[in-house]
Amino acid sequence: MSAYQKVTPEIAEQLRQIVGAKYVLFDDREQLKDYSHDEVAEEKYHGMPEVVIKPNSTEEISEIMKLANREMIPVPPQGAKSGLSGGGVPVMGGILLSVERMNRILEIDKANMMAVAEPGIITNDFSAAVQKEGLFFAGYPMSLHTCYLGGNVAENAGGGKAIKYGVTGRYITGLEVVMPSGEVAFFGGKRVKDVTGYNMVQLMVGSEGTLGIFTKIIVKLVPLPKAKIDMMVLFEDLQTAIDVVPKIMTDVGVIPTGIEFMDQLTLETSCKHLGQSLEQYKNAGAFLIIEVDGNDEEQILNECLDIGDFCTDNGAIDAFVAQTPADQEKIWAVRRNAAEAFKAISPRQTLEDIVVPMSTIPQVLPILKKLSEKYDLFIPCYGHAGDGNLHATVVKNPDHSEEQWQELLPQVLTDLYSEIYKLGGTISGEHGVGNKRKQYLPLVLGETEIEAMKSIKRALDPNNILNPGKIFDL
Amino acid sequence: MSAYQKVTPEIAEQLRQIVGAKYVLFDDREQLKDYSHDEVAEEKYHGMPEVVIKPNSTEEISEIMKLANREMIPVPPQGAKSGLSGGGVPVMGGILLSVERMNRILEIDKANMMAVAEPGIITNDFSAAVQKEGLFFAGYPMSLHTCYLGGNVAENAGGGKAIKYGVTGRYITGLEVVMPSGEVAFFGGKRVKDVTGYNMVQLMVGSEGTLGIFTKIIVKLVPLPKAKIDMMVLFEDLQTAIDVVPKIMTDVGVIPTGIEFMDQLTLETSCKHLGQSLEQYKNAGAFLIIEVDGNDEEQILNECLDIGDFCTDNGAIDAFVAQTPADQEKIWAVRRNAAEAFKAISPRQTLEDIVVPMSTIPQVLPILKKLSEKYDLFIPCYGHAGDGNLHATVVKNPDHSEEQWQELLPQVLTDLYSEIYKLGGTISGEHGVGNKRKQYLPLVLGETEIEAMKSIKRALDPNNILNPGKIFDL
Repeated sequence: MSAYQKVTPEIAEQLRQIVGAKYVLFDDREQLKDYSHDEVAEEKYHGMPEVVIKPNSTEEISEIMKLANREMIPVPPQGAKSGLSGGGVPVMGGILLSVERMNRILEIDKANMMAVAEPGIITNDFSAAVQKEGLFFAGYPMSLHTCYLGGNVAENAGGGKAIKYGVTGRYITGLEVVMPSGEVAFFGGKRVKDVTGYNMVQLMVGSEGTLGIFTKIIVKLVPLPKAKIDMMVLFEDLQTAIDVVPKIMTDVGVIPTGIEFMDQLTLETSCKHLGQSLEQYKNAGAFLIIEVDGNDEEQILNECLDIGDFCTDNGAIDAFVAQTPADQEKIWAVRRNAAEAFKAISPRQTLEDIVVPMSTIPQVLPILKKLSEKYDLFIPCYGHAGDGNLHATVVKNPDHSEEQWQELLPQVLTDLYSEIYKLGGTISGEHGVGNKRKQYLPLVLGETEIEAMKSIKRALDPNNILNPGKIFDL
Repeated sequence: MSAYQKVTPEIAEQLRQIVGAKYVLFDDREQLKDYSHDEVAEEKYHGMPEVVIKPNSTEEISEIMKLANREMIPVPPQGAKSGLSGGGVPVMGGILLSVERMNRILEIDKANMMAVAEPGIITNDFSAAVQKEGLFFAGYPMSLHTCYLGGNVAENAGGGKAIKYGVTGRYITGLEVVMPSGEVAFFGGKRVKDVTGYNMVQLMVGSEGTLGIFTKIIVKLVPLPKAKIDMMVLFEDLQTAIDVVPKIMTDVGVIPTGIEFMDQLTLETSCKHLGQSLEQYKNAGAFLIIEVDGNDEEQILNECLDIGDFCTDNGAIDAFVAQTPADQEKIWAVRRNAAEAFKAISPRQTLEDIVVPMSTIPQVLPILKKLSEKYDLFIPCYGHAGDGNLHATVVKNPDHSEEQWQELLPQVLTDLYSEIYKLGGTISGEHGVGNKRKQYLPLVLGETEIEAMKSIKRALDPNNILNPGKIFDL
């Protein structure tokens, strides 16, 4: 729809005027390349920016957006490059706007149990700072050591605590936003109830950088739970493990903080990547990591024992309880490093993010098995079993040529997404559509739904300047 | 912007063709008048429909909207008429679309802890049905005996359990929506995580019937808590009571289900309305109702005792614990009937819905006192102290003439909202903007914020057919 213009040396000079020469990268291709990708391995989802700019304030971002609208240049905003859908990648060139310098915690407001932070703060740093005050950011995702808070909000990141605590969006009550036009808006505030017009805060959350650039984020916190216990439960096979997951909630009656699962291949790959021994896991084909938190250690221990008994009555072969932080970290490191471990052994793979209604989780595994047989490749699986969000990972068969892989992959994904849709599921639970999944959006959303979304994008960004080419093409 | 057309006998006949003659009210002015108002007392916020239609299916609603777009006739949708902002009132005439016949629970899905219902189900009936299955709809508001689920979603209703459970929107994961154009969309599903494009579900929630008509609502449920305890804590004055509220959460460290408060005038008025004795409440000037729930009765009793001790250490004069359902109902009836009781004694009053950051609650009372002195009228106050949502009620001074009241009221509200805004608050926490508060929206939102909302309305409803004149005028 828009005829974009190129970034000329004159434009680069104007950008230097806004933020200072030091914070504009223009001529050095190697420097620009650093900003050309996120954690999606496939190169076809990478893209080179024409210029990189690192503003340090709301006002600077506002000026950049006004310039970009005037000159018709796309602006992809970018965080920590830890995304898993190409959401922050400059697929149409333009002005890559990195929020890396806007990394301050502006306020920890204990009386209101809220904090205000900038988008470029590393989520782990934010999380640690509020924990010091006895507070807890319950929305944090798996990649917390690297990701930025702004990216969490832009993607509505999930993670392992969603069953009990929900996802990032639940904790965002206010946003200062530079709109695509360059105007600055403030939606919401430090309020837990607010019906003053449309819920612009939750429209912005998860909009993948296409509707506005967040410059201040108000985060609702909860009291830091006084105790938590992690369990690792071993099963002979994945189906038996997955079958018990919904029943832990409905039959045992406990809502754990998280229920993660891994198949044998995932555990083995991750343990090797970490140099952990596999001795204690032998004979097992599937694993659940279950975390329970609360304020009363005895009560949560009893809940864990109930869960353990239920699991062994329903096919588990063993269960370990980890009460010390060191033991807990050992368990979680295996799960957290799964994606990294797979990428290390094979860059020709795609980490998927399907999500289904909780009760249909057991039906996903036969689908993955059928597809891996049909297309003769591997689809190991791990993820957030408790909330139906499964990171099936399609891995290239080493016997296939690169051309075969490129030809098969869209067929595998089309089949997979179509089957998941039949279960009431969708293509992304927490990673986003971005650049990587936009071609598949029509498999799970109809024309009316997509057109409604596009009309909102057009209304707020008539020139299609902010992060074009993500979620859908206009 | 639009030149609306009148509902002619020919249009009425076309509407009869869609839903059947029995479900179209056209000629009988008395019948139409039933649909001219909600619970807002002031007549200037009422409005007569030209025709009332009672569809019974998504398809019928779709046809009505297509007709209305073709003929350029406004369609205000309406639920139980229990609203408190004029959101469902036909202020521009047109086709009043009542969802009263669409009152079915379509599914209670225990395995996914979700239910699917139509918009016209009475929230209390919905709540009772899911409780029978051991499940709990945590989003329900104070008016649950009369309101409809569809209205709860349209207004993002709050209620007394928001501190712990959040408001209605948190529990809505999917919506079938007839869009303003008449097209049918389905957003979300039975999924607890979903980032497939923009969060249209949460944009629809709280949109006050201006962006779509909900025809199927997917509600996330939680396990029914096994125990709950209510307490009534008596204080000499309101300020002392309000001062302890944020500290219950930050200092005692318990997140109650709800903390409601009433001043002396509210308690007395409501008790009289209900015929309850005031004996046990004498000497007290303010009251907190505190509810704590959980799965372990002993634990929550201990939490209540901790809260009771903290309150008496901080100025409370007495505290009653109500463990039996009958005692609990007695306490809650007083609070729930407050609005009704005030309306019975004086229809010349306005029930407000201000909301402020939790820590600033104590600062609201001096503002109310100052304004009641400045304007020489009464502003009794009650509400959801725990989440900062206070139902200050401006009551006409009997010595003032009707003209004085009409002249003073906008001044009082302008002053009140401006002061609340300075505290970081806003004009509505759970009742909505509707028709009643739209003139005050610019006091708490800037031009950029309002224009962003208007542009979304224009994008989804270019003819401004669906519920025009609510939230803002285009």
